[in-house]
Amino acid sequence: MATIKVHGSPYSTATMRVTATLCEKQLEFELLYINVRNGDHKKEPFLSHNPFGQVPAFEDGDLKLFESRAITQYINHEYADKGTKLTISDPKKMAIMWMWSEVESLRFDQAASKLVWELGIKPLFGAPLDPKIVEENEAKLDSILSVYEKRLSESKYLGGECFTLVDLHHLPCLHYLMKSQIKKLFESRPYVSAWVADITARPAWAKVIAMIPN
Amino acid sequence: MATIKVHGSPYSTATMRVTATLCEKQLEFELLYINVRNGDHKKEPFLSHNPFGQVPAFEDGDLKLFESRAITQYINHEYADKGTKLTISDPKKMAIMWMWSEVESLRFDQAASKLVWELGIKPLFGAPLDPKIVEENEAKLDSILSVYEKRLSESKYLGGECFTLVDLHHLPCLHYLMKSQIKKLFESRPYVSAWVADITARPAWAKVIAMIPN
Ligand SMILES: N[C@@H](CCC(=O)N[C@@H](CS)C(=O)NCC(=O)O)C(=O)O
Ligand SMILES: N[C@@H](CCC(=O)N[C@@H](CS)C(=O)NCC(=O)O)C(=O)O
Repeated sequence: MATIKVHGSPYSTATMRVTATLCEKQLEFELLYINVRNGDHKKEPFLSHNPFGQVPAFEDGDLKLFESRAITQYINHEYADKGTKLTISDPKKMAIMWMWSEVESLRFDQAASKLVWELGIKPLFGAPLDPKIVEENEAKLDSILSVYEKRLSESKYLGGECFTLVDLHHLPCLHYLMKSQIKKLFESRPYVSAWVADITARPAWAKVIAMIPN
Repeated sequence: MATIKVHGSPYSTATMRVTATLCEKQLEFELLYINVRNGDHKKEPFLSHNPFGQVPAFEDGDLKLFESRAITQYINHEYADKGTKLTISDPKKMAIMWMWSEVESLRFDQAASKLVWELGIKPLFGAPLDPKIVEENEAKLDSILSVYEKRLSESKYLGGECFTLVDLHHLPCLHYLMKSQIKKLFESRPYVSAWVADITARPAWAKVIAMIPN
């Protein structure tokens, strides 16, 4: 078996979504570092992996992919018999899982990744935050988390009764947000708070965190 | 079999994504009109279908869903033996299809739906357009379509060799954009232009257009 390759950065939330899936699946892989601060993702050879110039990109033998959530879905499908099963088989329950997966990508992540940038990444290189962007996205995230609180009072995980890709896709943004002022939005909600504690405690996730240089 | 119900508006791009899939699958359904201009989507009973207060919502027997792309995926999976097959079975080709599906949702639609609002919907009730939003999103769409042009020079459809959900998901925004100044971004690219002509000519799509009141 050819080694799986991830071209990306250990700081990047989209890269971490892929490495977290590989760790849950107990698959070996190589993380090839793309220096985003130097703009390596906007030049060849990276652009031939992803014409949109964003990390991560992925290789499994002759298959080349970009878009983190397409990559995690591929890994889970292709390596169904390895590690954690990250989807649900029953068609109706699967549809509910897909629905929450869309909510993560089109609602949660749209607000959360802007907050990660302002409060988690910009401080790493001393850039000033934009208070208007923070305020706007904090309000959006607050209302999304009210919907999550209700959902999680009825279902142990967001996608259904067991941990799936839906929960996993949230982990990278949670990593940054739980170290910021935004933490209060999660901690003030009992079900959301228990869910965050549960999913961030997974051994596979600890491996992803350990890849971030100190 | 209980009748499939779509709660939405015939003008809404996300609603049309679902009705287009139902028409491709030759399934009967009922379109229950939600008056978005009156704000019916922000009140009960609609909020119990979608807590995020956006159309469409969907019912198939006791299954209730929102998020258009989760609904189309469910329909295609559940009614695999009906009408057009809208996915690819080979796992590697399927992964490529998922990748382009993410591109539609996270790149194309982000720019396109803002342009649809400014140039397609606002004029319907005489609201003035915001030239800054148009300019910004026209530039984004232009660079996305350059990537599409290359992809479509190598593959007849965006997701692969046959028409799939990936192409279908673009139809509603194309409907509005091809009637606006944005049309030039598509027409100036030969492969994109042939693709638009092909997918908008599908009989199932004509049925969706016919649902829009004059
Ligand atoms: N939808 C893409 C988003 C990828 C993305 O946003 N990557 C970020 C890092 S997390 C990036 O490359 N940022 C640098 C840039 O956009 O210039 C995915 O999920 O893979
Ligand atoms: N991600 C959702 C988006 C739904 C959406 O944007 N719906 C629009 C109509 S196309 C809507 O309800 N707009 C009114 C509003 O947001 O208040 C989906 O794909 O179903």
